[in-house]
Amino acid sequence: MEPSTPHVRVAVLGASGFAGGELVRLLDAHPFADVTFLGAHGSVGTTLGEIHPNLASLALAAEILREPVTADVAGEADVAFCSLPHGASAELAPGLLETDVKVIDLAGDFRLPASAYPDWYGFEHPAADWLGKAVYGLPELFGEQLPGAQLVANPGCFPTPVILGLSPLLSAGLVEPGPIHVDGKTGLSGAGRTASDAASFAASEESVRPYRVPRHQHTPEMERGLELATGFTPAVVFVPHLVPAVRGVVTTAYAPLASGATTEAMTACLKEAYEGRAFVRVLAPGEMVDSKRTRGSNVVELQIVADARTGTAIVIGALDNLVKGAAGQAVQNFNLVHGMDEAVGLPTLAVYP
Amino acid sequence: MEPSTPHVRVAVLGASGFAGGELVRLLDAHPFADVTFLGAHGSVGTTLGEIHPNLASLALAAEILREPVTADVAGEADVAFCSLPHGASAELAPGLLETDVKVIDLAGDFRLPASAYPDWYGFEHPAADWLGKAVYGLPELFGEQLPGAQLVANPGCFPTPVILGLSPLLSAGLVEPGPIHVDGKTGLSGAGRTASDAASFAASEESVRPYRVPRHQHTPEMERGLELATGFTPAVVFVPHLVPAVRGVVTTAYAPLASGATTEAMTACLKEAYEGRAFVRVLAPGEMVDSKRTRGSNVVELQIVADARTGTAIVIGALDNLVKGAAGQAVQNFNLVHGMDEAVGLPTLAVYP
Amino acid sequence: MEPSTPHVRVAVLGASGFAGGELVRLLDAHPFADVTFLGAHGSVGTTLGEIHPNLASLALAAEILREPVTADVAGEADVAFCSLPHGASAELAPGLLETDVKVIDLAGDFRLPASAYPDWYGFEHPAADWLGKAVYGLPELFGEQLPGAQLVANPGCFPTPVILGLSPLLSAGLVEPGPIHVDGKTGLSGAGRTASDAASFAASEESVRPYRVPRHQHTPEMERGLELATGFTPAVVFVPHLVPAVRGVVTTAYAPLASGATTEAMTACLKEAYEGRAFVRVLAPGEMVDSKRTRGSNVVELQIVADARTGTAIVIGALDNLVKGAAGQAVQNFNLVHGMDEAVGLPTLAVYP
Amino acid sequence: MEPSTPHVRVAVLGASGFAGGELVRLLDAHPFADVTFLGAHGSVGTTLGEIHPNLASLALAAEILREPVTADVAGEADVAFCSLPHGASAELAPGLLETDVKVIDLAGDFRLPASAYPDWYGFEHPAADWLGKAVYGLPELFGEQLPGAQLVANPGCFPTPVILGLSPLLSAGLVEPGPIHVDGKTGLSGAGRTASDAASFAASEESVRPYRVPRHQHTPEMERGLELATGFTPAVVFVPHLVPAVRGVVTTAYAPLASGATTEAMTACLKEAYEGRAFVRVLAPGEMVDSKRTRGSNVVELQIVADARTGTAIVIGALDNLVKGAAGQAVQNFNLVHGMDEAVGLPTLAVYP
Repeated sequence: MEPSTPHVRVAVLGASGFAGGELVRLLDAHPFADVTFLGAHGSVGTTLGEIHPNLASLALAAEILREPVTADVAGEADVAFCSLPHGASAELAPGLLETDVKVIDLAGDFRLPASAYPDWYGFEHPAADWLGKAVYGLPELFGEQLPGAQLVANPGCFPTPVILGLSPLLSAGLVEPGPIHVDGKTGLSGAGRTASDAASFAASEESVRPYRVPRHQHTPEMERGLELATGFTPAVVFVPHLVPAVRGVVTTAYAPLASGATTEAMTACLKEAYEGRAFVRVLAPGEMVDSKRTRGSNVVELQIVADARTGTAIVIGALDNLVKGAAGQAVQNFNLVHGMDEAVGLPTLAVYP
Repeated sequence: MEPSTPHVRVAVLGASGFAGGELVRLLDAHPFADVTFLGAHGSVGTTLGEIHPNLASLALAAEILREPVTADVAGEADVAFCSLPHGASAELAPGLLETDVKVIDLAGDFRLPASAYPDWYGFEHPAADWLGKAVYGLPELFGEQLPGAQLVANPGCFPTPVILGLSPLLSAGLVEPGPIHVDGKTGLSGAGRTASDAASFAASEESVRPYRVPRHQHTPEMERGLELATGFTPAVVFVPHLVPAVRGVVTTAYAPLASGATTEAMTACLKEAYEGRAFVRVLAPGEMVDSKRTRGSNVVELQIVADARTGTAIVIGALDNLVKGAAGQAVQNFNLVHGMDEAVGLPTLAVYP
Repeated sequence: MEPSTPHVRVAVLGASGFAGGELVRLLDAHPFADVTFLGAHGSVGTTLGEIHPNLASLALAAEILREPVTADVAGEADVAFCSLPHGASAELAPGLLETDVKVIDLAGDFRLPASAYPDWYGFEHPAADWLGKAVYGLPELFGEQLPGAQLVANPGCFPTPVILGLSPLLSAGLVEPGPIHVDGKTGLSGAGRTASDAASFAASEESVRPYRVPRHQHTPEMERGLELATGFTPAVVFVPHLVPAVRGVVTTAYAPLASGATTEAMTACLKEAYEGRAFVRVLAPGEMVDSKRTRGSNVVELQIVADARTGTAIVIGALDNLVKGAAGQAVQNFNLVHGMDEAVGLPTLAVYP
Repeated sequence: MEPSTPHVRVAVLGASGFAGGELVRLLDAHPFADVTFLGAHGSVGTTLGEIHPNLASLALAAEILREPVTADVAGEADVAFCSLPHGASAELAPGLLETDVKVIDLAGDFRLPASAYPDWYGFEHPAADWLGKAVYGLPELFGEQLPGAQLVANPGCFPTPVILGLSPLLSAGLVEPGPIHVDGKTGLSGAGRTASDAASFAASEESVRPYRVPRHQHTPEMERGLELATGFTPAVVFVPHLVPAVRGVVTTAYAPLASGATTEAMTACLKEAYEGRAFVRVLAPGEMVDSKRTRGSNVVELQIVADARTGTAIVIGALDNLVKGAAGQAVQNFNLVHGMDEAVGLPTLAVYP
């Protein structure tokens, strides 16, 4: 877009959650987006500033969160970011899409084939015909499908580094399409904002805990993303863990190493795959990822190690789950949908320490 | 031992580190141990209380840390706990053993065959003939070798839950002896007490970081421990990660599930294997481990999940790296070496929250 | 008590909270106490082990939490520890006391004169006649009133170090009885176990927040405790802050320095006042308190600084709010009520780091 | 400045520390500043990216940190931000100033009168004649002295909220100029980047610790700042504490309340004083500051409470010590020195949670 580009009016639906707050923060700094509608689920009637005191200095802070009534959203926005609980956008999006509002969905509602929803999400998908039209919004792999797209399924925080890290290696034959074990670690903000004993500081400090083993819904998303990107269909086992941090995801994937593949060759493969991309940092052999170095930025770090002794490719990724793992990637998709540079309005520097 | 049991005089060598401080704390509460010698490496000449202010109220706090001169230790102690940097006990222990002092070594110096040291620890073992006489001190698996043992190799923090969790399943044929991927998470105290940028609060809070990939020295220890316990020799890939906690280790192992093996069968197998043991808590199917529930106690939690969809056994363990992963297990070994109940003087309740 | 001492049967009412769990943990290790009744408020019907998984290995873990019906408690226990929400023991205690059950109350229900309750706690006291019979259970100052006492008001976590630190200095004329400013910092467990947005890890990490300014109910408790101990009635201003820790209280009091009073003289005064006491550690001039050094122990650290430049006495204290600030001090009171040594069953060593 | 404004060439001296890294991060986003020189003390010869991996994606990351030789700096920069250890800019700045380089000093070297340095900083000031020419860079109070200033003493992190909070109240007669007790809490980044036992994660988590009592060098800075702003000279007692956070300062000041002054009147006074300022957020009566809401932003929050019962004004402030407490305020000063809007290039929204 040029300085003369008309601004895009955007709705943030689910503005009361952590990802919703992050969307507002990022969109406020975006030169071509105007937030014109704030929708919510449980917090209708409160102001944005009451819900997110860190946003208190925005003009938007006085805006009241509203029911996301289709006609209202359609009348006031060109694009709707849906950051609602799983299942809610599947209900809401079709109406918006029919009025030509573009939808970027941050939930899991448009990421999988219809057949997977009963099993992994616990509901029959109410808008199965839209599933085939959704673009899986991992911009570095499926970016060419984004310009003009009407419905974008924004990827999950765990699948993002796993699919980015493994796809080029599978396609290049450096990793075999055998079973892949993915071990995930996430900060507490990944579990959302709802108060609970388990999410309390007292229960979470000094606590490392696996959860939803082995049925986390990001498992089929990883399998499908790898298939879309490579044509291969390796089985994925995924065990996520909560660690005492607020932000940050690290995924460690263990996959079958192709004969002769080296750390150097795999690193070079990834560097080539993501050359020129603003938000993928492929580490040199020997460097180790650190989720803290991505905090507040839209960067994903990728690290590759070939363990020749056991024939294992170790592919490690790190990102900020609320930025590259949610709101930041959604804005990146928004940019590409509208023909802008993917990096417009997005931070690349972490707030550190 | 009965109330009339004579006390055992013990030396703590390496008393200035975290594990050394924990040894003193636990041995102070032990009814049949008298700490008579405090040895150190870099901190010779300071008092215990200066190094460990949390121990300031002990009578021992005024004791000065001394050079661990063999004749001095041998003259004042029956048993030496060696909590020295890797390589130091390999030099020191033979002299002590020749004077009939028993040695319980918390470093890695007596855990592996001689051939493994150059590769994994970076030194030629100077006392290779003692390696064959060392008992690998995982009491729940090798406890019958402990009574009267002269040299005990206390296991590493990561191998402890991995070997305890997998061995009975491998022996029972519920897990196949194929390659095993072990993903480890540890708090910062596992890295020892030496000050560094990387261990600072500023660098560590909000940081999840892998380290020493793929050459962590606990890798061959897991392989050897599994072999000693089961006769099988599965290859192990191990990736440890630092998480922002002080104490706590969680290991998540992914292994080939035997055909037909279920979560219930594997859980029952472990429950039977560890029935009556004071410090192994096998969780019921569906329960998830939490490192926080083990903090300050000598308990290890084990959780088993069969993922039939992919044919994977997921074996998760949690413990306090300074207690069951170091000083507590050393005291448990001490108890069994001397014919006492394994639980004497050891806490089973976590300090929570 | 001698080994032949008959055990005391105790009820823990409010066993589901953090202080309740800590009471059970400490009483389980106590050689002369038997926990015979577990009462609760909101969690009646669940087991102790479900509520406190860190206590899962106790025989008591299978016990069901019950309604604290007076007749039931009186039939099964000699002493009731009441760790209930403010206002609940004022209702419950009189019935128990009339049946000769001793009551040690961890809430604020018996710490103040009747006239203070409407203002500071928001209720008219329903058992005002019992207020005069309660012993304020700060054992180092009022210990001589404890043997045989029927009703003990266990002090609050913030007042404990403030009153212990200032009383001897006021009595000795080293501090003038002018206005005292007390700045408090506490970990999140001090706010209790109820889930809330504000107590979540996401909201609490990296957050320092004052609360209840200037109307925290520990303010009149400090004023009254100082008056009981010294006869002086200095006005207290108290501002507590939440800091991102689980346990730990630090209070920093600023008071008028008497002319000529020095750090050394004040330190000597406190050392003398608490000589021989198991749980008060008066630091040498120049040493600084650290809440971490008290964690899991019943110790309170006190540090004194005379700022001659401005005529200010700075009196700093640190303790573990769940031990010396709640459950540990309650057990210390229990010991003294029953003529035992104050330290029976109580830890003096912190779990560190 | 207009889009045609020529850019200002800036040197960051002390680029290897936390404040130095934050300066580079903020200046990189500044539309009218070009970082042309990176100087360091101990890390000369390494690149910026090696020292600050979070800045790895900048073009500047490959730049080598250099000795801050006067002629080199003067040849390449118009303004030097000095973020060096105390005492170093007092040596370095005069040479730069004589070559017409402007200096914004983040250390304490130009904040006090010469007579205070031996006592509070431990050195005789080597450039006492420059002290009188330095502007104390608290922009909201002394902003009119900034346009064109050649030497700016950037305030300390603790004095900033204290002086901003108290000055208007003192000037308006709502607070009496009696002794003021200031209790400070800071995250660990305030102690700088040097590795030490005390700054380790293991020692700092769960630790609240006072330090440098009662001789912290921010004490005379508060006294002088209040005097410069109000003409009054109240004595300040200041006790800082380390709390387990990385960023964040909260100061709680207790001062004598003027007769009749209310929370509402004091709040209104501050709101009026800072009306239209971009970075001061005066909270409504009843609201409480939260350091987390300022993290990563240049905002300072101020909260006022009148405690009529004791005649005390409680003035609480919160900020991010690396932004408004250091690098951000330095950029704000830079903006005003050059006649720009104070907010150019500076974030007002916290990264939350």
